[in-house]
Amino acid sequence: MDHYFERIKNGRLKLHALEQELPPEEAVKVRRSFLEDETGVSLSALGKFTIDIDRVVRRNIENMIGAVQVPVGIAGPLRVRGEHADGHFYVPLATTEGALVASVNRGAAVITRAGGADARILRDGMTRAPVFAARDVVHAAKIAEWVTNHRDVIAGAAESTTSHGRMLGLVAYVTGTNVFVRMEFDTKDAMGMNMVTIASEKASELIESETGARLVALSGNMCTDKKPAAMNLIQGRGKTVIAGVFLPETLVSEVLKTDAHTLSEVNHRKNLIGSARAGSLGFNAHAANVVAAMFIACGQDAAHVVEGSSAITDAEVREGGVYVSVTMPSLQLGTVGGGTGIDTQRECLSLLGVSGGGDPPGTNAKRFAEIVACTVLAGEISLLGALGARHLAKAHKTLGRG
Amino acid sequence: MDHYFERIKNGRLKLHALEQELPPEEAVKVRRSFLEDETGVSLSALGKFTIDIDRVVRRNIENMIGAVQVPVGIAGPLRVRGEHADGHFYVPLATTEGALVASVNRGAAVITRAGGADARILRDGMTRAPVFAARDVVHAAKIAEWVTNHRDVIAGAAESTTSHGRMLGLVAYVTGTNVFVRMEFDTKDAMGMNMVTIASEKASELIESETGARLVALSGNMCTDKKPAAMNLIQGRGKTVIAGVFLPETLVSEVLKTDAHTLSEVNHRKNLIGSARAGSLGFNAHAANVVAAMFIACGQDAAHVVEGSSAITDAEVREGGVYVSVTMPSLQLGTVGGGTGIDTQRECLSLLGVSGGGDPPGTNAKRFAEIVACTVLAGEISLLGALGARHLAKAHKTLGRG
Amino acid sequence: MDHYFERIKNGRLKLHALEQELPPEEAVKVRRSFLEDETGVSLSALGKFTIDIDRVVRRNIENMIGAVQVPVGIAGPLRVRGEHADGHFYVPLATTEGALVASVNRGAAVITRAGGADARILRDGMTRAPVFAARDVVHAAKIAEWVTNHRDVIAGAAESTTSHGRMLGLVAYVTGTNVFVRMEFDTKDAMGMNMVTIASEKASELIESETGARLVALSGNMCTDKKPAAMNLIQGRGKTVIAGVFLPETLVSEVLKTDAHTLSEVNHRKNLIGSARAGSLGFNAHAANVVAAMFIACGQDAAHVVEGSSAITDAEVREGGVYVSVTMPSLQLGTVGGGTGIDTQRECLSLLGVSGGGDPPGTNAKRFAEIVACTVLAGEISLLGALGARHLAKAHKTLGRG
Amino acid sequence: MDHYFERIKNGRLKLHALEQELPPEEAVKVRRSFLEDETGVSLSALGKFTIDIDRVVRRNIENMIGAVQVPVGIAGPLRVRGEHADGHFYVPLATTEGALVASVNRGAAVITRAGGADARILRDGMTRAPVFAARDVVHAAKIAEWVTNHRDVIAGAAESTTSHGRMLGLVAYVTGTNVFVRMEFDTKDAMGMNMVTIASEKASELIESETGARLVALSGNMCTDKKPAAMNLIQGRGKTVIAGVFLPETLVSEVLKTDAHTLSEVNHRKNLIGSARAGSLGFNAHAANVVAAMFIACGQDAAHVVEGSSAITDAEVREGGVYVSVTMPSLQLGTVGGGTGIDTQRECLSLLGVSGGGDPPGTNAKRFAEIVACTVLAGEISLLGALGARHLAKAHKTLGRG
Repeated sequence: MDHYFERIKNGRLKLHALEQELPPEEAVKVRRSFLEDETGVSLSALGKFTIDIDRVVRRNIENMIGAVQVPVGIAGPLRVRGEHADGHFYVPLATTEGALVASVNRGAAVITRAGGADARILRDGMTRAPVFAARDVVHAAKIAEWVTNHRDVIAGAAESTTSHGRMLGLVAYVTGTNVFVRMEFDTKDAMGMNMVTIASEKASELIESETGARLVALSGNMCTDKKPAAMNLIQGRGKTVIAGVFLPETLVSEVLKTDAHTLSEVNHRKNLIGSARAGSLGFNAHAANVVAAMFIACGQDAAHVVEGSSAITDAEVREGGVYVSVTMPSLQLGTVGGGTGIDTQRECLSLLGVSGGGDPPGTNAKRFAEIVACTVLAGEISLLGALGARHLAKAHKTLGRG
Repeated sequence: MDHYFERIKNGRLKLHALEQELPPEEAVKVRRSFLEDETGVSLSALGKFTIDIDRVVRRNIENMIGAVQVPVGIAGPLRVRGEHADGHFYVPLATTEGALVASVNRGAAVITRAGGADARILRDGMTRAPVFAARDVVHAAKIAEWVTNHRDVIAGAAESTTSHGRMLGLVAYVTGTNVFVRMEFDTKDAMGMNMVTIASEKASELIESETGARLVALSGNMCTDKKPAAMNLIQGRGKTVIAGVFLPETLVSEVLKTDAHTLSEVNHRKNLIGSARAGSLGFNAHAANVVAAMFIACGQDAAHVVEGSSAITDAEVREGGVYVSVTMPSLQLGTVGGGTGIDTQRECLSLLGVSGGGDPPGTNAKRFAEIVACTVLAGEISLLGALGARHLAKAHKTLGRG
Repeated sequence: MDHYFERIKNGRLKLHALEQELPPEEAVKVRRSFLEDETGVSLSALGKFTIDIDRVVRRNIENMIGAVQVPVGIAGPLRVRGEHADGHFYVPLATTEGALVASVNRGAAVITRAGGADARILRDGMTRAPVFAARDVVHAAKIAEWVTNHRDVIAGAAESTTSHGRMLGLVAYVTGTNVFVRMEFDTKDAMGMNMVTIASEKASELIESETGARLVALSGNMCTDKKPAAMNLIQGRGKTVIAGVFLPETLVSEVLKTDAHTLSEVNHRKNLIGSARAGSLGFNAHAANVVAAMFIACGQDAAHVVEGSSAITDAEVREGGVYVSVTMPSLQLGTVGGGTGIDTQRECLSLLGVSGGGDPPGTNAKRFAEIVACTVLAGEISLLGALGARHLAKAHKTLGRG
Repeated sequence: MDHYFERIKNGRLKLHALEQELPPEEAVKVRRSFLEDETGVSLSALGKFTIDIDRVVRRNIENMIGAVQVPVGIAGPLRVRGEHADGHFYVPLATTEGALVASVNRGAAVITRAGGADARILRDGMTRAPVFAARDVVHAAKIAEWVTNHRDVIAGAAESTTSHGRMLGLVAYVTGTNVFVRMEFDTKDAMGMNMVTIASEKASELIESETGARLVALSGNMCTDKKPAAMNLIQGRGKTVIAGVFLPETLVSEVLKTDAHTLSEVNHRKNLIGSARAGSLGFNAHAANVVAAMFIACGQDAAHVVEGSSAITDAEVREGGVYVSVTMPSLQLGTVGGGTGIDTQRECLSLLGVSGGGDPPGTNAKRFAEIVACTVLAGEISLLGALGARHLAKAHKTLGRG
């Protein structure tokens, strides 16, 4: 051990190069020990992981020193009536925020007793938008024109890099001398960012050589990846999903201790008027909470929680109850790739019946998206109810958060 | 075991009530087994956790069935020259997205070789904004006026609920018959949402009784919590932090394989023009990635990644190099409460030297915030560099993501 | 005449320099004739103006060639129950869009028959936000700190430039190496942009000399002037005004040919949900129409229509009717300065009883703002009603627009 | 006269009904006199108009009492090198804000001396987006699907209402139970809002009858008309135009008294960073000023200034100078219909050579759009220059504004 420490300190051995000399398990141990030695901090808990290290260091992480354990609770059974997901589900939520699972669980109970929530996927496509520099605005207009008129050849180039992906469409946006080409792909059961990035690179090379455009960045932020953007709210990215349920007045009263009118008023004043005045791109109560907890449990890219929070919740009073819906324009997720294959995460996906590739391809990811949307709906119903019944602060106190 | 299963199926025992009959460890086991039985899915990996279950079920999770393990890699050493954090840090990142740690690590190397990144906290305060209903616009104006003229008495009510929190200010925003009262608190080392929610409830009761306002929701979305909002981008929430570093041309060329001008151009066309045209509230490359990975490692509320993504990155060419900065207006974090006390997460905080309450109170959270900002800066530098050098797709391929 | 033409063509006489050689009336005539000669287009109608040219060329226009005539219609009587404006008003609207005056007039009738609309001004202050460059983020933080701690001395410098203006407050916003100092002034009856610009220049010089900050632009776009911005929607600029009225069901039915529920539903689905999904900063039906027409009639800066469109309209069903309100966070207007003194425009202001300086100063502008808000409310009610009753396309056809 | 006054006061004669008894000229006179009588305010200047009243009362205004006169100045000659507009133009600007014309004129001089500004139209289409209510989210998804699959039949219905308009495309956006169908039309030389509204009504009836959707509002705010919206910034509405010019360093120095680097820095810190931090949808200096002045001069709908302000300005330092561009995604204008036929406004259009219908149809409006974009560019260059040279406050003082 000391032998390695010395070389690391001398700079002759890079921390991240340990795997080149040692088997993963050893490399991780040496690295962790080195840090303990350097900082005087014990990292023993981080070292007590059981996930398959070979897979993880190859695909998911570099410079690994161990793993954090995030507790998983379940909400459900949740009755989902999607086009792809149809049944009762126990939803795994990985979180450290007390009261969250209980809240979602309560929402799930209401939905299930109401007969289940409907869910539909409205569009499905992962996007990348490289940015090119043009010589001037005339050149920019010409590049955009060429791109628009050569969708097929661009699609051909892009698709040559992947056996799964298919280009669904592309749009060129010109801003001054900047040409953004937003390409959209069907990525089946994968979240697909890498597939799409690689495909976009090939497409970009073609655009460069044919138009004289100069590629400045393979991602030009009109994708828009991991930043809140009206682009995604309006046009969608990944899956665009809606879920809705009618709650009879008796259920609202019995379980949520409030009434249809109050639920609707809370939504109107908080989620619509409040968000409007705050200049927000999210018109919901706490969609991000549910998305984050499901994403961490199920091995998704946690930074995509950003887009998940651009959801719109609505609650309409109707005869005898209230119809509550959520609209999630840009839910980016997958059931293969990324962290989906890690042992614990894969079990969470399996619990939902959506682990691995679907049959036909793409159906598992769609099923997953419908379940997420219904769980978000459960979270919204529960929190709107708690606010309406004035239970929020009480819940925080009872469940001993923070 | 079967005994419990039967009662659960009969509905005589709620899944979440198991802890009332069994010690936590047993309750979690029964619940997990029940799910395995119901779904036919093995959840054995989820069961192999080592974190202290007593603490976790009391504070962090309900309906627990186990834990997911998220691999942790480290980036660093990262030289931080903050007002509160000053030194070299090894930054823990919990992620399943291959290439991320390597990328941040490269950025950290550049920063450290450049002598370190400066960081400053510009403001610090956690907010809640209850929404009240007024009878009409005249009443709304009166409520706002009363609130504005009675800050001290409202602060008194709010602060009576907490030994740590202090109200820093409040502003009333009227929209039609809706009055939003945004209250801001110093919450020391805690992220503080619960403290602030409880304090706001007390303040709201006072406002109701004195003005005839009717509290509709303790959170009125002008807080704005876990939704992207210009409110937070402009005014801040939690910590508002900036970090910056001057990179000499030689370093940019040697490590990033690009040049100062290119770095600046990529930032301009992608992070500024691209985000502008996308109607985005985030003007950065991938701040959310770093925030998410640090938040999961360090026991933070992962849904707060949303606000972390409203960051602005800038890169100015200067004589002999480029000055790169990030501005994070609403970084919400804490070193006590939430998931910070769970064994693995606490170790990550300890690795940064910021676990638990600071001395004086509040300094640990501030230190943590400065480190996060500098790590985000590292991530931005690295990705801008990779885009400029056209390495992005290659990195994805080499490091075997997705 | 030919003599001048020749010199202009030779480049020895600049078109804009004609006033240096000729009295205004002649200069305008020569300039117009020159254009007619150059382009072969008759501009005789433009020459038939009657407004006092001496005043206009001194204050309102350069390179004048004449005047366009914009037809003015009136809506009213409109019953306004403001804090400053209390009475029945005939509102002048200058527009070329058929059906607009008729629509507002109908809304005014409803409001007046309902007993009048309430209006209140919630805040009042014109802003400027110069942007300064700092050496690095540490310097930026110091500049912001100095500014925050020296409000009085900065206010003193600013106020030394004006006999009317008073600084109400200032906030420093740091983004990377950019420091924006948003200063807010009471400008009494003037819209105040020029006053504020001149005062900000003086304040900026002080900030530069005391902090080493470098002034980059006297307006740094966080003002935010004439651009749609959440900044103004949230914090307000100029006047923040609300107006509201309760409409009994009978009135809605009789005049608007619809019902309270429909009015509220149209507002919810269109102004709230529709605007939310469009990533809009305006949650109203057509506030800009009314603001534009009143601004042109009353000599206001027409580019400020931009901010006027960031309004939020709400419509709540209540027992026996519906309560409709508008919130206009950034209504920028004045009754002195700008185009308010031109003969025709001054008459429009006089018609509202708000021409010139108020007694005490500031009250005329406040009165004007309340009337604008109530007129916008009239426009909203009428259009929501027309949409609800499905009369929109019909109105367009009947009134012969387009 | 008194005879009418009495009947009006008695309520037996509506003010707006005067045209039914009297010729327009008389009706306007009686109405104006009545107001004078009621308010004691002289409106004689408003009465001194010369525009053809018959046309105006039929198409442009109701309840007319006269006209305001807005002074018109000219900027130019401005060299435009558009695809449709190619030549030198004298641009009419109707404004009451001193210094504006002078500023634009200076920008025009710089552009013209630099050889002219390029301009290109990137897309062209006027939109309407009715909102429909669905029974639930499943129904909403079905409606959207039907609409997507029946573009041709919907287009047929829409186009049956117009001889000029042609549907270019349509997109269905679902949010909860709300279905927004954004339809886009080629409206040739007309701005086209009315044409499009009428066509959308017909299309909506078809959608209702085929899908069971219930039309809630013919305009659902995803159009988005006269509200600032990312929708328009991203996707465009009306014309999407770009203009750009390279300015050699000598010109910048000689005319603008600054340098290329400063121009670029002002743009970066103010128009990009400042607007970003302000949560703005406009990334420019004062595009709205120019759009407003040209729109009022040329008989356009002044409320469309709102969209004109969602422009993006960029300034890139290049070898030997700076390339400045503006991007205007949603410029809504026309050369026929609306106020374009009023005598004075028509002369302004004629001055630009774009009055009336183009040959082929649509070319006049395109030409007009290119000229507007180049004039906005002139305004941007001039103001950025003035800020860079620190002349802004001085200009305000010298030219006696405010």
